[in-house]
Amino acid sequence: MKRSWMFATSVAVAIVATAVALTAGSSRGPVAVDVTHALMPVPASVKFGAGRVPITTATTVALRGFADDRLRAAVQRAMRRLEGRTGYTMSRAWADPAAATIVIECQTAGAVIPTVDEDESYGLTSSSSQVVLRAPTVVGAIRGVETLLQLVSGDAEGFYFPGVEIQDRPRFKWRGLLIDVARHFEPVDVLKRQLDGMAAVKLNVLHFHLSEDQGFRVESRKYPLLHEKGSDGEYYTQAELREIVDYAAQRGIRVVPEFDMPGHAQSWAVGYPELMSAPGPYAIERRFGVFDATFDPTREATYKFLDGFIGEMAKIFPDPYWHIGGDENNGKQWAANPKIQAFMEQKRIKDAHALQTYFNQRLLPILKKHNKRMMGWDEIFQPGLPKETVVHSWRGQKSLFDAAKQGYDGVLSAGYYIDLLETAARHYAVDPLPANSGLTDAEAAHILGGEATMWGEWVSPETIDSRVWPRTAAIAERFWSPREVTDVDDMYRRLERVSVQLEALGLTHERNGDVLLRRLVGERDISALKVLAGVVEPVKGYTRGGQQRWTTLGPLTHLVDAVSTDSPGAREVRQLMDGLLSDAPRFAMGRDRLRAIFTSWRDGRPALDALVARAPALKETAPLVADLADLGAVGLDALAVLSLNATPLDAWRDERVAILDRAARPKAALEFPFVPMLRELVFGAMVQAEMKTLPPAEWRARVRALAAPPRRGRGAL
Amino acid sequence: MKRSWMFATSVAVAIVATAVALTAGSSRGPVAVDVTHALMPVPASVKFGAGRVPITTATTVALRGFADDRLRAAVQRAMRRLEGRTGYTMSRAWADPAAATIVIECQTAGAVIPTVDEDESYGLTSSSSQVVLRAPTVVGAIRGVETLLQLVSGDAEGFYFPGVEIQDRPRFKWRGLLIDVARHFEPVDVLKRQLDGMAAVKLNVLHFHLSEDQGFRVESRKYPLLHEKGSDGEYYTQAELREIVDYAAQRGIRVVPEFDMPGHAQSWAVGYPELMSAPGPYAIERRFGVFDATFDPTREATYKFLDGFIGEMAKIFPDPYWHIGGDENNGKQWAANPKIQAFMEQKRIKDAHALQTYFNQRLLPILKKHNKRMMGWDEIFQPGLPKETVVHSWRGQKSLFDAAKQGYDGVLSAGYYIDLLETAARHYAVDPLPANSGLTDAEAAHILGGEATMWGEWVSPETIDSRVWPRTAAIAERFWSPREVTDVDDMYRRLERVSVQLEALGLTHERNGDVLLRRLVGERDISALKVLAGVVEPVKGYTRGGQQRWTTLGPLTHLVDAVSTDSPGAREVRQLMDGLLSDAPRFAMGRDRLRAIFTSWRDGRPALDALVARAPALKETAPLVADLADLGAVGLDALAVLSLNATPLDAWRDERVAILDRAARPKAALEFPFVPMLRELVFGAMVQAEMKTLPPAEWRARVRALAAPPRRGRGAL
Repeated sequence: MKRSWMFATSVAVAIVATAVALTAGSSRGPVAVDVTHALMPVPASVKFGAGRVPITTATTVALRGFADDRLRAAVQRAMRRLEGRTGYTMSRAWADPAAATIVIECQTAGAVIPTVDEDESYGLTSSSSQVVLRAPTVVGAIRGVETLLQLVSGDAEGFYFPGVEIQDRPRFKWRGLLIDVARHFEPVDVLKRQLDGMAAVKLNVLHFHLSEDQGFRVESRKYPLLHEKGSDGEYYTQAELREIVDYAAQRGIRVVPEFDMPGHAQSWAVGYPELMSAPGPYAIERRFGVFDATFDPTREATYKFLDGFIGEMAKIFPDPYWHIGGDENNGKQWAANPKIQAFMEQKRIKDAHALQTYFNQRLLPILKKHNKRMMGWDEIFQPGLPKETVVHSWRGQKSLFDAAKQGYDGVLSAGYYIDLLETAARHYAVDPLPANSGLTDAEAAHILGGEATMWGEWVSPETIDSRVWPRTAAIAERFWSPREVTDVDDMYRRLERVSVQLEALGLTHERNGDVLLRRLVGERDISALKVLAGVVEPVKGYTRGGQQRWTTLGPLTHLVDAVSTDSPGAREVRQLMDGLLSDAPRFAMGRDRLRAIFTSWRDGRPALDALVARAPALKETAPLVADLADLGAVGLDALAVLSLNATPLDAWRDERVAILDRAARPKAALEFPFVPMLRELVFGAMVQAEMKTLPPAEWRARVRALAAPPRRGRGAL
Repeated sequence: MKRSWMFATSVAVAIVATAVALTAGSSRGPVAVDVTHALMPVPASVKFGAGRVPITTATTVALRGFADDRLRAAVQRAMRRLEGRTGYTMSRAWADPAAATIVIECQTAGAVIPTVDEDESYGLTSSSSQVVLRAPTVVGAIRGVETLLQLVSGDAEGFYFPGVEIQDRPRFKWRGLLIDVARHFEPVDVLKRQLDGMAAVKLNVLHFHLSEDQGFRVESRKYPLLHEKGSDGEYYTQAELREIVDYAAQRGIRVVPEFDMPGHAQSWAVGYPELMSAPGPYAIERRFGVFDATFDPTREATYKFLDGFIGEMAKIFPDPYWHIGGDENNGKQWAANPKIQAFMEQKRIKDAHALQTYFNQRLLPILKKHNKRMMGWDEIFQPGLPKETVVHSWRGQKSLFDAAKQGYDGVLSAGYYIDLLETAARHYAVDPLPANSGLTDAEAAHILGGEATMWGEWVSPETIDSRVWPRTAAIAERFWSPREVTDVDDMYRRLERVSVQLEALGLTHERNGDVLLRRLVGERDISALKVLAGVVEPVKGYTRGGQQRWTTLGPLTHLVDAVSTDSPGAREVRQLMDGLLSDAPRFAMGRDRLRAIFTSWRDGRPALDALVARAPALKETAPLVADLADLGAVGLDALAVLSLNATPLDAWRDERVAILDRAARPKAALEFPFVPMLRELVFGAMVQAEMKTLPPAEWRARVRALAAPPRRGRGAL
């Protein structure tokens, strides 16, 4: 499930989805959103009122109706977070509902092991005296408690819950995050904090990608050579797996394991080469890509082994869904094995696709025996696929919609590949079920939801948080909130607040960047480096692999690993330039701030050059340092021309475009995402004269068209 | 072991120790230190030469002589860190010693479970082609590998090991860090990263303070009510304890458990009230201080219980030393219990001290039976104390020296109470065995070393790293390096480099501060707050407890928890002012930088006021914001007067001294550590005329004397 054309499909859909976006603060059909709130995901219905419930050291909480240990623990965790935010010590005793500041009224336990059909709805009312949260199930209450924490507000008078009326329920019932712990292992504490973050933004499925060519990550007592030979010692014990599943369940999160087969299976073969379609021997794969090792679907011993293994794991993973992978089987071992070819001939299996369908059909009764429902990547969507199978689409929405029309349940990941390091805005624009899907209501009901996918090639325990967060919070909103909630600026405003809260929860997405920068410099003061690090982004898509030959053993401690995937600094400068151009013919809006930024780039060079000279780990960034200084100079030149209202010569433009073209080429797997907009600034400076004849909006469009580079610029979103 | 007069003793000693300090870069008897290296602790002997061994992707490592899994794992961990620092992927295969970049030659395994008498010495030679590390034991090699990593240098040509010859061995064999996990629990991963940090600076004892009035932190299968009722569920399972002990042993670190008795024992009593000298019932203590619950030394059942418990724990903690605590027994329960009084009368035990000695004497055969040697805080140093007992001094060096004279082994913690939040310089100045100790060589041999103590009242898993590190690295140097290594400026220079490396190792002392600041603000941008946060320090000693009524349940998320205990920003401004005054009569050195800093304080107020108004968690800092602006103005005024060479009126001085006096009073448990030096700046401005008659050094001394406040200023060190 790793193809570079994935976005080609999703972006087309995205444009449709974005077209219905409304401006910040306006009323949006059923959703009346107050612009100052920082709720994410936005509830299905929210109305702010005039009330105000103060939060003090005397704030108390009461439970009414049903309560169990899971609910009590969740509420106590939330109260500790409230204490952390406010600095107040509050009572740990349960209060009387009549007198409590916060009342949580739950009706039933709901499913103790979370299920896909759980009722996650809740209502939250805050008047002048009390906040009341009502939910039919414990999971609903857990969701509501997260909203409650996001409602905490503050001003000169102190902390308070604003007056509000919320009725909330998720739009989709499957809202997942895939974590690939196979290409790089992630310790239990790393997973736990991801689960905390997921719960904070109401995600409810951890898709646990546990085996790959590069590693087998669970302890099998039945087949111990799996983890002993296939993991470099980096695997979860069964006790740890149970701990993770329980930690997730406590937060209303399902854990769906994936053991990828028949391809992506090399690590199984280190200990058990006989499972594969070629004799081996096999070693743990260190490179990235698609490899040959593939289960032998013709041997009964294969199914006996899988029956034993799945039976063992089924006891650990209680969720009824079981992901078999099924993607990217290159068919080479099958084609090269005469025994397998003979088998296909004998059984009239016409090609590798059909042989994989045969394999899947043999897996199905095994899964059923262990009470599991099959799920797989969209390659498994072939004629003859049993109807109860869930299709997980990574290649685009079409296969998902096709499957839905044929009655298959489906989950979308195309468009949510967070490992491609696209902006939050880009993922946010993809809707699992856009208004133009062409599906009937009955067909649409088969679209269960979506999953963000954190594939593990380029993440370590130190960096994974910054690749998942905060962007995944925007995706979580897409899965939970009404389709009409699409305002990108408002999303970013709220995302920044949520990001701070996620960090307080233990996630390291913001803090670890500085640690990486300090290690690169070897010194405590990183202010010089931050001038550069604050405005570059990692190259998008699969380009890093093309630029850096890398393996699972390589250190992920380069500048590209330290910087934000969706740089607030780059976004600011892009927005400033856009604002300035839209302020034609004055070009005054944000000019001073822009000038200060451009100046810092131009003048930051000596300090950065000195840094690169004494810190060899920064050597690869030397061309970026030169680029940034030149970009600063270009920006200052363009500002000067715009304030002079003069028309430069074509040579002026050509020199600057040459600089921009050079700077647009990625170096050290990094890019300047604002280059296309800086290009607009230069072209805007060139055609000021045309403002006399064109209305401002048309002039702006003309500049945009002039500046459009030969091929699509990356950061233009 | 928590008394505020502790420093009164240690500071007296410190002054003697500081007197032998030499200037940076000068030759120091046996230690010829190159000023540009960043080794910490400084080796016993180090000589830099002209050679240079490049570090590249082709860098390899070989083992020669003895090797075992512990050594191989340690070297591989080091190579991963080298990869992280350089960004290079290196071979994981062992190279041929003749061709390898790094050769590690070990003679024997040494003790697999680290012992107090382990030979930790090593030699390290780097010429132009190869680095060779030689050690008699695996632990010696592990120590040398840390030095090797600290030697990594870089310039425009790339990374390299400089030519060097090192012969190294520790000055003291007991170099510990006490971590109190009882008052606040610290999860296993928090401890593991402390152990990583300890190994990096060659500490070799984790003193594991496991029980307190506020919590009992180990799982006992024999007496399960201990952890079930005494821990709030926050305890280490026996598997986790074994994991910690093993993790430490892998790094050549001993784990010495402490179960404090007969006092500090309230948490034992929640499950087993019959152990105490008053009937109970007991609850887990939430407050801080000294409490009454004390073991009943008169009942045989007490000893039977302790025999069972110690026997159970002895299997988990293999180290032969066993810390019984023994401190701060207030004797109230003993005095109030007629049965105990009768027992004392009958046995002719004259007072509580003697009764505690009786208790200890009863413990001794129990410990012996389980092959443990008794260690306790210096209260146990009473007539009749068995000679094999180790005295652990928290009250001062006198008791330690007295004990040594009587033949007792001793370990010093007075002067190393890092929970008091003193500067690294202050701890660094304390020597466990100063030149003037008055001990014979034979007596001095009883001084085994020292321990930094991280008492747990005011630390959470989020903040403990910043209270331990980087200051403890300076203490580690005191325990390892020759007595003559005392240059404070050079220590701070190296400490900053080591601090960055400790963070890369996983410690969170630097990064988590920003997380706390962001949570306080609720926003991503904390630049305004950092103007204040960068120059304040927590109040020292035990004053926070006096200022904030607090319990173990209170959130440690205030500004005081976020800021550095030894603020580099405050240190810089203090040094700048000192430099400026020493630059009389020009007063030019650092003036521009000082003026910029003072201006940022004065002009930062509106942004900070706005922040405080919208972020209620910062409300308590409002007076500090006002102080800082006023201090900035005072500084600017003084600079102006100094450059004018004018003499202000006394009223000018009095107004400013009033501001300084107000600012010197702690608020929100924070203080400005540079106020005494700013006072000198003001008084210096007053007496410029005296420069005509006094030589510069005498004038400087005169200013210092004039500025000395009525009582000793805290930050004057």
